[in-house]
Amino acid sequence: MNIQETMASIGRAARQASRMMAKTTTAAKNAALLAMAGQIRAHAAELLAANAADVAEARTGGLDAAMIDRLTLTAKGVEAMALGLEQVAALPDPVGEITDLKRRPSGIQVGKMRVPLGVVGIIYEARPNVTADAAALCLKSGNAAILRGGKEAIRCNQAIAACVRAGLKAAGLPETAVQVLETTDREAVGYLVAMPEYVDVIVPRGGRGLIERISKDARVPVIKHLDGNCHVYVDDAADPGMALRIIDNAKTQRLGTCNTTESLLVARSVAAAQLPEIARLLIAKGVEIRGCEETRKLVPEAKPATEEDYSTEYLAAIISVKVVAGVDEAIAHINQYSSQHTDAIVTENYTHAMRFLREVDSSSVMVNASTRFADGFEYGLGAEIGISTDKFHARGPVGLEGLTSQKWIVLGNGEVRG
Amino acid sequence: MNIQETMASIGRAARQASRMMAKTTTAAKNAALLAMAGQIRAHAAELLAANAADVAEARTGGLDAAMIDRLTLTAKGVEAMALGLEQVAALPDPVGEITDLKRRPSGIQVGKMRVPLGVVGIIYEARPNVTADAAALCLKSGNAAILRGGKEAIRCNQAIAACVRAGLKAAGLPETAVQVLETTDREAVGYLVAMPEYVDVIVPRGGRGLIERISKDARVPVIKHLDGNCHVYVDDAADPGMALRIIDNAKTQRLGTCNTTESLLVARSVAAAQLPEIARLLIAKGVEIRGCEETRKLVPEAKPATEEDYSTEYLAAIISVKVVAGVDEAIAHINQYSSQHTDAIVTENYTHAMRFLREVDSSSVMVNASTRFADGFEYGLGAEIGISTDKFHARGPVGLEGLTSQKWIVLGNGEVRG
Repeated sequence: MNIQETMASIGRAARQASRMMAKTTTAAKNAALLAMAGQIRAHAAELLAANAADVAEARTGGLDAAMIDRLTLTAKGVEAMALGLEQVAALPDPVGEITDLKRRPSGIQVGKMRVPLGVVGIIYEARPNVTADAAALCLKSGNAAILRGGKEAIRCNQAIAACVRAGLKAAGLPETAVQVLETTDREAVGYLVAMPEYVDVIVPRGGRGLIERISKDARVPVIKHLDGNCHVYVDDAADPGMALRIIDNAKTQRLGTCNTTESLLVARSVAAAQLPEIARLLIAKGVEIRGCEETRKLVPEAKPATEEDYSTEYLAAIISVKVVAGVDEAIAHINQYSSQHTDAIVTENYTHAMRFLREVDSSSVMVNASTRFADGFEYGLGAEIGISTDKFHARGPVGLEGLTSQKWIVLGNGEVRG
Repeated sequence: MNIQETMASIGRAARQASRMMAKTTTAAKNAALLAMAGQIRAHAAELLAANAADVAEARTGGLDAAMIDRLTLTAKGVEAMALGLEQVAALPDPVGEITDLKRRPSGIQVGKMRVPLGVVGIIYEARPNVTADAAALCLKSGNAAILRGGKEAIRCNQAIAACVRAGLKAAGLPETAVQVLETTDREAVGYLVAMPEYVDVIVPRGGRGLIERISKDARVPVIKHLDGNCHVYVDDAADPGMALRIIDNAKTQRLGTCNTTESLLVARSVAAAQLPEIARLLIAKGVEIRGCEETRKLVPEAKPATEEDYSTEYLAAIISVKVVAGVDEAIAHINQYSSQHTDAIVTENYTHAMRFLREVDSSSVMVNASTRFADGFEYGLGAEIGISTDKFHARGPVGLEGLTSQKWIVLGNGEVRG
């Protein structure tokens, strides 16, 4: 078989498995997840050995340090994978939930039932733990999955895949419910994202390049996350101590996450009083300030910010700062420059808070909280397959619910339409 | 300006208007809708004259009778448009609704807020009433709209557009909140569906050719409806009288609608007892039966059904009929051949009903009711922009809610992440 035929055959098997998975009991799905966790613990040594071989080859191939860091699996990482599977088993099953069942004047009852999407394709890069995490979320939400990990992680991914298959088998579920591609041919991805007859949604997890390429080629919906250019706006009615605490956490708690704040806006009327202290704190923690002209007058260490700075997700110890007239300009600036990921206002003013919540067009909008909270676990989803910066279907942190859809159900007693 | 520049300029204006519309009050939106209704009534004579000119040209151009029927606007049709606008004004405003607000262990409260999608592009064919209907739904859901009607309806659409603009103006809203394209250049559609920076979603309304072409070219999400190949399955535990009544209504109440039943499945154990009577009724109403071999033994008038018949949306006085072993085969057949629009079971068996509801993968699944109920008004949505046969975002009848999205909101008290 050539690659296209192979992919079609994998797609067909996934579609068939998805029919089984949609009607599988919660008990069977949980049994499979727990069996997978057991398999992963039992085969920890093999997983680590496979990973060591992957890492060795990556080093020889000259992969950069950050990539090798993401690729490397430790004994702790193996245990975290097993625990992750057990946590997903403990989550409520979203499938079959019936809501909004209402009786209509015609006599019929109309409501919605939550159902799996069908077949989920996940394309990811170095991190081997995604293989287990993604399999677990797809399985629990009643979907079949086709996983395509990075070439650099192929040995470890295949070892994890064997554990996943063994877990499915132990629970009496089809092993084709989770298929991890054995080929590392790039062409395979092209086919995977263009088989609407077999694949219902694609979730790319990785760098911007990967996600843009997949979005361009995809012929099925994509749940995607591009940049996290997050803002904190310090309103004229902000509590100064709270503003300082939130900016500190939002910018410096972790520099490389997508919910880290990259841009600070400060209301003009409080800039002189608050900006120097905020800047001192950030500079003391090694953060470079790139500011507008007014910022630079108040913070001599600040470098000038360019137009591009305001659009940039640094993922580094840099922050752009702008003094704005007030909440109107802050909202307008954010709606122009933000990546619609997460933006926060610090204020004690009720109307400003309500306007910010309603008018800022981002997937998460916050009042008096750190942007770092934008996360599936912090939001109570129990797990997260990604954070969507799109508005369609799933927005913001995507958990089990984002891997499902709602269909309409009608319960009648022989009603016909008049 | 060339077409591309014109479309970009229209897109920019729509994006800007969408920011205004997202924060507009319910009162202003309702005032605009009522003012539009007033304008339409006041300009009824002009609308009818414009339509008459469109129809005259269509006749000269040799458009087929069905198309001319859809194109023709009557005085009653004008009043129906005005009433439709008033009905949308009376619907609850979906924007700003906050749900599921829960306190998390960290102290933050996390919930969801319903927000507009932004800019909605609607592409439709002959029916001029779509101009008013679509404008109303987009406006009420807080979106800006770009409408592109059929070339054959251009005069009437522009006359309606003038009423819409006057209504927006009367309510103090930007007239660019609803833009009806003046160009009938086909190229314009190509640009409209490929401007993700200005357009958030496309809703094509028309024949399969139009929808497939747009889906292929679109670079933004499409809410689309392909075929309505709907089924009724008469289970071995069906009430015979109810089965007869439902099939009669589902097939013959209206032949040309997408929720009309096109295929009948009958459980083998009741086929001999029920199929002849069902067939007699349908044949008496002029419906041609195309059946499997077992059907033809019970119904001598039946023609043989081909594989293609089971996949066909006839939109005509034809029905395909198949005898199946029971609920398992019925579900499998429907999941293979149906267009995932609407499928119904007639049964008194609880387990069969529950299995059918859960396992049939269609946008509407019904027990003991006519497939003809699959409709936004019948479901209580108040209005309908279309019926989606996709699983993503909006599934089944799409009302105001389908033109919105939910963002996350976080209400904090200065919390930071630990």
